[in-house]
Amino acid sequence: MSAPTLIHAPSDFRAACEAVRRSGARLGLVPTMGALHDGHLALVRHARACGAGKVALTIFVNPLQFAPHEDFDRYPRTLEADLARCRDEGVDLVFAPGRDAMYPPGFQSRVEVTGVTSRFEGAHRPGHFAGVTTVVAKLFGLAGPCVAAFGRKDYQQWKTIERMALDLDLPADVRGMDIVREAGGLAMSSRNRYLAPEERQRALGIAEGLRRAHAAFASGERDPERLAAAALAEIGPRVSSVDYVAVADADTLEPIARVEERAVVLVAARIGKTRLIDNTVLGEDAPPKR
Amino acid sequence: MSAPTLIHAPSDFRAACEAVRRSGARLGLVPTMGALHDGHLALVRHARACGAGKVALTIFVNPLQFAPHEDFDRYPRTLEADLARCRDEGVDLVFAPGRDAMYPPGFQSRVEVTGVTSRFEGAHRPGHFAGVTTVVAKLFGLAGPCVAAFGRKDYQQWKTIERMALDLDLPADVRGMDIVREAGGLAMSSRNRYLAPEERQRALGIAEGLRRAHAAFASGERDPERLAAAALAEIGPRVSSVDYVAVADADTLEPIARVEERAVVLVAARIGKTRLIDNTVLGEDAPPKR
Repeated sequence: MSAPTLIHAPSDFRAACEAVRRSGARLGLVPTMGALHDGHLALVRHARACGAGKVALTIFVNPLQFAPHEDFDRYPRTLEADLARCRDEGVDLVFAPGRDAMYPPGFQSRVEVTGVTSRFEGAHRPGHFAGVTTVVAKLFGLAGPCVAAFGRKDYQQWKTIERMALDLDLPADVRGMDIVREAGGLAMSSRNRYLAPEERQRALGIAEGLRRAHAAFASGERDPERLAAAALAEIGPRVSSVDYVAVADADTLEPIARVEERAVVLVAARIGKTRLIDNTVLGEDAPPKR
Repeated sequence: MSAPTLIHAPSDFRAACEAVRRSGARLGLVPTMGALHDGHLALVRHARACGAGKVALTIFVNPLQFAPHEDFDRYPRTLEADLARCRDEGVDLVFAPGRDAMYPPGFQSRVEVTGVTSRFEGAHRPGHFAGVTTVVAKLFGLAGPCVAAFGRKDYQQWKTIERMALDLDLPADVRGMDIVREAGGLAMSSRNRYLAPEERQRALGIAEGLRRAHAAFASGERDPERLAAAALAEIGPRVSSVDYVAVADADTLEPIARVEERAVVLVAARIGKTRLIDNTVLGEDAPPKR
């Protein structure tokens, strides 16, 4: 595979995306914060499966979506390794802008989605989703019409971006991709590299909790609180602390009185200093493999 | 002139704009709330002068930018007359969506600009600019790459939209057009039709105040408060009430200690029940003609 074209300037990225479309190819967009793992590369393939003839992957650790106490400074930055993985995967464009290129002096705009962001990650990370939607709106603005692939591991983020694109008539076709899991069921995440071996073992309890919820659902349980309690019984003892284990409407993320066709189980928990999130859709996804 | 193509559905508008670009023409966009007057038609010509080969004019009385006590319900709606004026002006596309097409059930996104919106209209009309930037972001999202013409009568709105497009990398080239004035100097506005003849006469005091500020500036006055006081001395006695008469930085709309090269004089005042705004840039614009 030839090396992807590495672009730093937003105006160059806009022009390169326009050139892709002019060539007749559909543009695929894979926004990331770098520290690429197999889940990200699966997004590249997912964009192609959704019709993209050429794929642009963006790498930007977006300061706007981190709170002051969060891990912005220690978030892994591995550009050389990322570029090598992009080359091996046949990514066409890599856009890796600097902070000042994305947020020059005087920057003062925000894109916000309410509703779907009000609970879970939105409640535990105030300002997080406004940072996400603002930077993704910018990436959509630069890329222009495209098919944009997001991982369902960040389920609420995916639903939020889907909502934003719909509400603001952004010309991006937002596609969620099934969670890619490591052996044992741990959802792939750039933050997994923070885990010590013993912590990684404990982290498997999260997937085990999701399996328990699936098992309870398969046995006919339809009460969201009991389904969440089944997951929590497995997760709670294995992790350091739990931010939430909850069952919600799979589209709006609102509370539900009873699971009808489908519902999402959402988990956020800490193992040592590392905060992990995971989820599964009852009535739709298969339980995480062991 | 042939009648413009009238479009109601957002998806049809997107496709029509795309077809304009595919034909090789640059697209001009003129967002309005209808009740078209000569100022709006000048925007159509301005878009053409800025390179637009075809012009789309949008008509949408945007509920999001009106506060509950404001004039949303009585805002003039004159679609038939508007279409006739568009035909006479050679407008190519008219996009007149319904409220539910722009804000379907479940709509929950906002675009906000801080800073430039914090004073003046932003302070007097809470939520107004978030409504404006949200609907304009949607129109930009539907229209795609274009040259978008806005009237400088709504000076802060123009600067806010310019900021939004820059910050969010929206593919619209935002162009402000000089204020079009009626005989006597009254800035054209759809709200002028609310004015009784006696009120219209009193409204001329606003332009007279702007002339006074220009005269003081020409005489060497550089103190923003004294320049604003010169305008207010003329405006105050003629109108029913004044929301603000102020001199500010012409780009950021921040307060300034002294006028160097240029500065904007901003006025908002009520005449009876009608609220009017006007402005002029000292050091750049000519004083309003009598």
